[in-house]
Amino acid sequence: MSKKISIIKVGGKLVEDHNGLNLLLEQFSHIKNHKILVHGGGRSATSMAHKMGIETKMIDGRRVTNQEMLEVAIMVYGGLVNKSIVARLQAMGINAMGMTGADLNYLQSVKRPVKDIDYGFVGDITKVRINELSLLLSQNIVPVLSPLSHDGNGNMLNVNADTIAAEVAVALSEKYETELIYCFEKPGVLEDADDDTSLIPQMDVAYFWQLKEAGAIHEGMIPKLENSFNAKKRGVEVVRITNVDKLAQGGTVLL
Amino acid sequence: MSKKISIIKVGGKLVEDHNGLNLLLEQFSHIKNHKILVHGGGRSATSMAHKMGIETKMIDGRRVTNQEMLEVAIMVYGGLVNKSIVARLQAMGINAMGMTGADLNYLQSVKRPVKDIDYGFVGDITKVRINELSLLLSQNIVPVLSPLSHDGNGNMLNVNADTIAAEVAVALSEKYETELIYCFEKPGVLEDADDDTSLIPQMDVAYFWQLKEAGAIHEGMIPKLENSFNAKKRGVEVVRITNVDKLAQGGTVLL
Repeated sequence: MSKKISIIKVGGKLVEDHNGLNLLLEQFSHIKNHKILVHGGGRSATSMAHKMGIETKMIDGRRVTNQEMLEVAIMVYGGLVNKSIVARLQAMGINAMGMTGADLNYLQSVKRPVKDIDYGFVGDITKVRINELSLLLSQNIVPVLSPLSHDGNGNMLNVNADTIAAEVAVALSEKYETELIYCFEKPGVLEDADDDTSLIPQMDVAYFWQLKEAGAIHEGMIPKLENSFNAKKRGVEVVRITNVDKLAQGGTVLL
Repeated sequence: MSKKISIIKVGGKLVEDHNGLNLLLEQFSHIKNHKILVHGGGRSATSMAHKMGIETKMIDGRRVTNQEMLEVAIMVYGGLVNKSIVARLQAMGINAMGMTGADLNYLQSVKRPVKDIDYGFVGDITKVRINELSLLLSQNIVPVLSPLSHDGNGNMLNVNADTIAAEVAVALSEKYETELIYCFEKPGVLEDADDDTSLIPQMDVAYFWQLKEAGAIHEGMIPKLENSFNAKKRGVEVVRITNVDKLAQGGTVLL
């Protein structure tokens, strides 16, 4: 296992803030080993939908993706956000390649089955194919992955970017020494979500459950941590949750 | 020069018509040698801009691309149209890869200098890099190119799809035996634009000039033919203008 790779998920307000994103890309460009950037863009999609007169429907904090909203997602995630990042990375001399799961068929998913709630055109990942990703990486190409997949029957599906980052990291850990980094606007997992100095530098599953049961972990952080522990259990060497300043090291390290 | 490649530009109403596009992709999938698909999507962009309350400004039949319209172009060409084609090709077992000029930095351009008219964020091509395209092709990957480029400084630019097809064909003709096919809704170049049976099966430059001077060639066809003859002069083996039915052979062959 000679080669190291960092998979960086950038989300939250960072993606939508021109200066914040520049700072992130600057830090990202300094990573010497292989690397992949995974981005979100939910706020941009919501604002674009609003411009187009499409109402954003949320159930329990999760977006419902109807046909119209899927088109917005493909346009904003696969087009606007993705190509803006790729063009800026190229300007920094990084040979980036923007992708959805349909490109090179690297990520397949199935439309989430309807149980109590119909989330619409949202995909659950069924397959990550790393052969072509490895080919790109071997040529010092940097994949930039948007939160979109396809079902293999010609239909695109919206997939959570945190989950894509985790699943790609797990799949790559068969061939690479893998580091998965969730980068957002907070310095890491906080004991008190309103106090940035209350960073938890290290966290194991037991401690996570303890904090979760006590209701001390911010709602949006729970699936991120579940993804993270899951990825670690399935072979990812290092998982960290951090902000731009500590991209190289620091934040909350999962044990 | 052992390897053959077909560069197919699909445009006009074909891209926007679900069934027409399916028929095109079906024919495209039967091409056995290396292949690249280049697509337009102007009508979709115009209709999306309209939905967003953005007015489409045209000067002499050419779109003016202001900042808002550039974003629509990136969303529609680089996102919606491109990924819809890629997902459908994957469903046919073709390993497609959707790209703008920023991806792999395969196509650089410079913002068109303002003379009498400011066309806005429209690019004139300055560089086609075929190394990574060749790498993809060698792995039986099929690039799907949208009419977008970048300036190397982090900015995307809108570029005419006919021109991209011609310039990519010329660049690849150094390494491949190259065929450039413009595929649209008409059977080829017509003596009478309103009579589909008036197909001109072969055309040389002299005849083109003769028809052009006589005002017998449809306005939109003139730049396509100029691109075509230019590509042929610069090393492209075969240039044809045709419809879906005659994709494999037929239409108007340039001499």
